[in-house]
Amino acid sequence: VHEASQSDVADRGGYRHYMLKEIFEQPRALADTLQERISHDALLPQSLGPAAEKLLATAENVHIVACGTSYHAGMVARYWIETLAGVPVNVELASEYRYRDVVVPSNTLFVTLSQSGETADTLAALHFAKSAGYLATLTICNSAQSSMVRESDLAMMTRAGPEIGVASTKAFTTQLISLLLIAGMLGKLRGRLTSAREAELVSHLSKAPGLVEDALKMDKAIQALSEDFADKQHALFLGRGTQFPIAMEGALKLKEISYIHAEAYAAGELKHGPLALIDEDMPTIVVAPNNDLLDKLKSNLEVVRARGGQLYVFADADTGIRSEPAIRVTAVPHMDDLIAPVVYTIPLQLLAYHVAILKGTDVDQPRNLAKSVTVE
Amino acid sequence: VHEASQSDVADRGGYRHYMLKEIFEQPRALADTLQERISHDALLPQSLGPAAEKLLATAENVHIVACGTSYHAGMVARYWIETLAGVPVNVELASEYRYRDVVVPSNTLFVTLSQSGETADTLAALHFAKSAGYLATLTICNSAQSSMVRESDLAMMTRAGPEIGVASTKAFTTQLISLLLIAGMLGKLRGRLTSAREAELVSHLSKAPGLVEDALKMDKAIQALSEDFADKQHALFLGRGTQFPIAMEGALKLKEISYIHAEAYAAGELKHGPLALIDEDMPTIVVAPNNDLLDKLKSNLEVVRARGGQLYVFADADTGIRSEPAIRVTAVPHMDDLIAPVVYTIPLQLLAYHVAILKGTDVDQPRNLAKSVTVE
Repeated sequence: VHEASQSDVADRGGYRHYMLKEIFEQPRALADTLQERISHDALLPQSLGPAAEKLLATAENVHIVACGTSYHAGMVARYWIETLAGVPVNVELASEYRYRDVVVPSNTLFVTLSQSGETADTLAALHFAKSAGYLATLTICNSAQSSMVRESDLAMMTRAGPEIGVASTKAFTTQLISLLLIAGMLGKLRGRLTSAREAELVSHLSKAPGLVEDALKMDKAIQALSEDFADKQHALFLGRGTQFPIAMEGALKLKEISYIHAEAYAAGELKHGPLALIDEDMPTIVVAPNNDLLDKLKSNLEVVRARGGQLYVFADADTGIRSEPAIRVTAVPHMDDLIAPVVYTIPLQLLAYHVAILKGTDVDQPRNLAKSVTVE
Repeated sequence: VHEASQSDVADRGGYRHYMLKEIFEQPRALADTLQERISHDALLPQSLGPAAEKLLATAENVHIVACGTSYHAGMVARYWIETLAGVPVNVELASEYRYRDVVVPSNTLFVTLSQSGETADTLAALHFAKSAGYLATLTICNSAQSSMVRESDLAMMTRAGPEIGVASTKAFTTQLISLLLIAGMLGKLRGRLTSAREAELVSHLSKAPGLVEDALKMDKAIQALSEDFADKQHALFLGRGTQFPIAMEGALKLKEISYIHAEAYAAGELKHGPLALIDEDMPTIVVAPNNDLLDKLKSNLEVVRARGGQLYVFADADTGIRSEPAIRVTAVPHMDDLIAPVVYTIPLQLLAYHVAILKGTDVDQPRNLAKSVTVE
């Protein structure tokens, strides 16, 4: 067992764990990551370096390759890039990508995501990609000295600062904001984004740190909620669209540090299998449903309510979704859909943290997991 | 509770459940599905109708959209089509596809998969696709009278015959063989497949019914194995490449009919989260690892062996992978990698079936699930 020294406590800035400190650092980390990459009403793709503008303007396809939490960020980016830039995106696990025959269409941008820049499978995928006929390689990375930054044509640094907790938090949300920047830059340089739409996107981006600050105020409410999970062995996370990968990330956080077997599904898949599992021992967490999706979930819930199935909903306060028997609603401040994946990540991080505290696990050093998976 | 009548028993052909009957019908179903679609050494794309050859020759991209088990078949097809035809493939859940902005590159073939041909989200996706600028729509379906067959430009019928068990078995493996046929046809018509390679593929296809027949002989061994799972609440399935979706399908079967919380991961993701969960209560099932992958898994297993983690491996007898403490190996007859996903599905179906019998669930009518999800 690791004995906390005085200097550790100082490093944690008064927080009980690095993870909690890093969760609360996110407004600052997001603001830093936006620095010099947006003006008051414009995206600044030239901040990626002199070659960036021409390369991004040429990109007709995007391949995103990553592992773990970074893969979830990549999955969100697919929705953003196809919507804002009209460029088809393929997102793949690095350990799958590197062992199969991948077809590379002409003018495809290859993007890697990694906190450390040393993740073994992602780095091996990058090595492969460099001779596979890609337009260029871009890495989104939190470590400036890393192999991935050194070996990529373009790099966008996430300015999260050192992340010590094994379960990634601020590295993930700064990856998201970086990917939304890239999606917007691609849209701008490919002529898909009008100036008005660009200014609107910049306005959403610049609000992200403040929205995350607001979301952190949910801490006490989520601490109370976490008590419902302290005796659970299972959890089901549901989301749709850009919130499906956020549900996956929420499930992964809970898995990593509380050892609860949490699994995420796209909300529309509920009837294709997981519905059979729901009972009082398996709570269901739903991220950011609109009223339409919630109506469908409610009709499914009727089926399982008799067996004690309990739904926990994180929803926009403006949708008017209210708690009722078997449905506990936690309101999230209203915001634009585009930025919502960044903000909805916060309550799920806090939930995992508080459940882990109740379970008495080693939050910053969960069993069997390493901070960077640098061997396969 | 449904009382079995004499006619039910007759319908089940002497089997205790429709699911078991349908598992054992797979050699015949696969042979039927291959009928008239291959000669002794060639693929016969004209069997898809007069328009098929021109359309498949023109396809430069493929979008596959499906739900549940059919989605897993689509995921396997991606590997096959990119390898055999060199055409980029995007596979997506219908409930996700229909609610986002999808970019449709020119000359993209839109493929739906559904046993019933009435799956609500997949049908809605097809309706959308028909006005989204696709080259053509193709459905792979088990019901000739269905909406999807009626509304698609091309149809390849899976000739599985009526499937009564809610957990899909023969519909899945006939979807797989249909997709391998389509992958080969695309490769042939796009000039990527030499005659020699085509004849080789046809030879592998025509061996599938016999290989599945052999795999069914594992029934007794798997029945014995199932006893290890009777008291479990969790299971982790791992696979790589084309066997990753097979692991997903194996987990879904176990979930659907035994109510064990089974989850699948790409084998390479183990260290990115799920490794924290493994202990004596969560057995790990590995599908078709090669020796290289098994070495990596073994090195991970060392970490968890102390906590009683148990590995169940389904592996090619020829790889020489042997049982050892904490690793129980079940040998699968040797075959070519291309056809392996079809065959490795069989032991996972049998495992789910026998575990469900031990758990005493209603195998053919698992709780909360319907055979066709025709409402959202």
